[in-house]
Amino acid sequence: MVEDVQLSGDTVTVPGPLKAGANFHKVGDDLKPGDRILAAGTQLGAAEIGVAAATGRASLPVRRRPRVALMSTGDELVEVGNRPGPGQIPDSNRWALLAALREAGAEVNVLGIAPDEAEPLRALVVDALGDADALVTSGGVSVGTHDLVKPLLESLGTVHVGRVKLKPGKPFTFATLGHAPLPDPLPWGERVAFGLPGFPVSSLVTFEVFVRPALRKMQGFAQLHRPTLPVRLGYDARPTADRTEYQRVTLRRDGLELIAETTGSQSSSRLMSLAGAHALVKVPAGDQGIIAGSIVEAMILSLP
Amino acid sequence: MVEDVQLSGDTVTVPGPLKAGANFHKVGDDLKPGDRILAAGTQLGAAEIGVAAATGRASLPVRRRPRVALMSTGDELVEVGNRPGPGQIPDSNRWALLAALREAGAEVNVLGIAPDEAEPLRALVVDALGDADALVTSGGVSVGTHDLVKPLLESLGTVHVGRVKLKPGKPFTFATLGHAPLPDPLPWGERVAFGLPGFPVSSLVTFEVFVRPALRKMQGFAQLHRPTLPVRLGYDARPTADRTEYQRVTLRRDGLELIAETTGSQSSSRLMSLAGAHALVKVPAGDQGIIAGSIVEAMILSLP
Repeated sequence: MVEDVQLSGDTVTVPGPLKAGANFHKVGDDLKPGDRILAAGTQLGAAEIGVAAATGRASLPVRRRPRVALMSTGDELVEVGNRPGPGQIPDSNRWALLAALREAGAEVNVLGIAPDEAEPLRALVVDALGDADALVTSGGVSVGTHDLVKPLLESLGTVHVGRVKLKPGKPFTFATLGHAPLPDPLPWGERVAFGLPGFPVSSLVTFEVFVRPALRKMQGFAQLHRPTLPVRLGYDARPTADRTEYQRVTLRRDGLELIAETTGSQSSSRLMSLAGAHALVKVPAGDQGIIAGSIVEAMILSLP
Repeated sequence: MVEDVQLSGDTVTVPGPLKAGANFHKVGDDLKPGDRILAAGTQLGAAEIGVAAATGRASLPVRRRPRVALMSTGDELVEVGNRPGPGQIPDSNRWALLAALREAGAEVNVLGIAPDEAEPLRALVVDALGDADALVTSGGVSVGTHDLVKPLLESLGTVHVGRVKLKPGKPFTFATLGHAPLPDPLPWGERVAFGLPGFPVSSLVTFEVFVRPALRKMQGFAQLHRPTLPVRLGYDARPTADRTEYQRVTLRRDGLELIAETTGSQSSSRLMSLAGAHALVKVPAGDQGIIAGSIVEAMILSLP
């Protein structure tokens, strides 16, 4: 999974420690040949690329971007831009997940809305997986829906997770794919499949919790998870009895503290609860909840 | 500066409020046609793109990316990858600034190492500015160097700033460019030029302080500056008598606090002081400095 790339200003990671070598030139006042300049797993930003270039290197070994095939499933979906008929909705998840996948460093092959029959669906997925490290689907994994995805994943590999105690995100599904007629396993392991729920908030929250760290692991990042910061809850976070809940919050500064306010109704279909959210607050299952004024660790998406 | 773009997962901004319109479809439980769904200046991440797509929109009006021509100047520079002779160094700033410009949302036209004579230099810059919103140069603006850049900027427009009370970054230069033989001013105003210092840390710090906010302004972002957070200094920050200093620090968590530690020698040539830094701490000019244990607002580059 290691490739030599030209220095290009892309954000990539180095797979092993990078040292100042024989072709070392003035990087700074305190470096000598043989000193380590970048650790394995370092994300290459402007300063890190500058340091590497200052040693005279025109290319660096980096992890390549994971290739992800992205598919939406659901009888109710129409292409965004086409007028939905009765009971239909635009396939908005595709575009939200495309943006989320790119932000996480993936190259995306957009398969569009899945065929509604088992054989064409299987042919499409098998073909796409010839050139992909991972399959990400949205929708079609809930009980009671016309689900062709889970049987397909079972026929191509092993479904390890078919449900999680998470709100939003209960129908989240995870599988490893290694069976014929897929090509041989990839050099670094099996292909993986993430079946995300169809509700827009559920698909993006399970992406944050499960898919993004996995994609960062594939890229060799030392830091897999979103950073967390302590925040003071500005509202009473009511719990869900049987599931951990990731509530969406905005943050604002009050003196030296960050105050977390709810983005409003936390319905899984209400994407406005995530648009503009700065962080996710994890509320444990049970009947306690977290009272306003408490300090909690929030998963930071962006800072105000 | 407004263009219609296909939904692509790119991070762009909306120039005006986006409202749920006649082609509104189920975005959530609490929206009705006419409600505002995205404010002007919003950065379009996954959830925001999902919200727009859920309204049935296949394209959005957004600001286009600023086009920046990037040039390195200095007799001592050789192309990265070529072996430097005596007194020469690789042109590492080009690659660091390319990465920084892209992170800030710009499309970059890399001009390479500037010609060493006035007329070829002028021809190159005038040609590049036909299709650019901004010129960014590094090096060649210090007193005593063989500087062709400042006279060129003076002949093409007005140099407003030729020196700043900043460490690192004293030679920072800013000009607006509107004179013949440049094409007519752009519809949204004059072209601008940023002459960054040649020292690697100086060029990236002045980029952070001056160039990145300007590029974000051109893109219509509501949030122009890096976010700040209160951090506790883990070291004595010694001041510079006559210049504000931006010291590079790493951050670590200690209980509910972020502790800022110096990245070591803050020499302008020591890019290792910026590689891996999480934040910049502003130390006012004078003889006071900031003692260890003080709380200061740090400009956050990334979180630990």
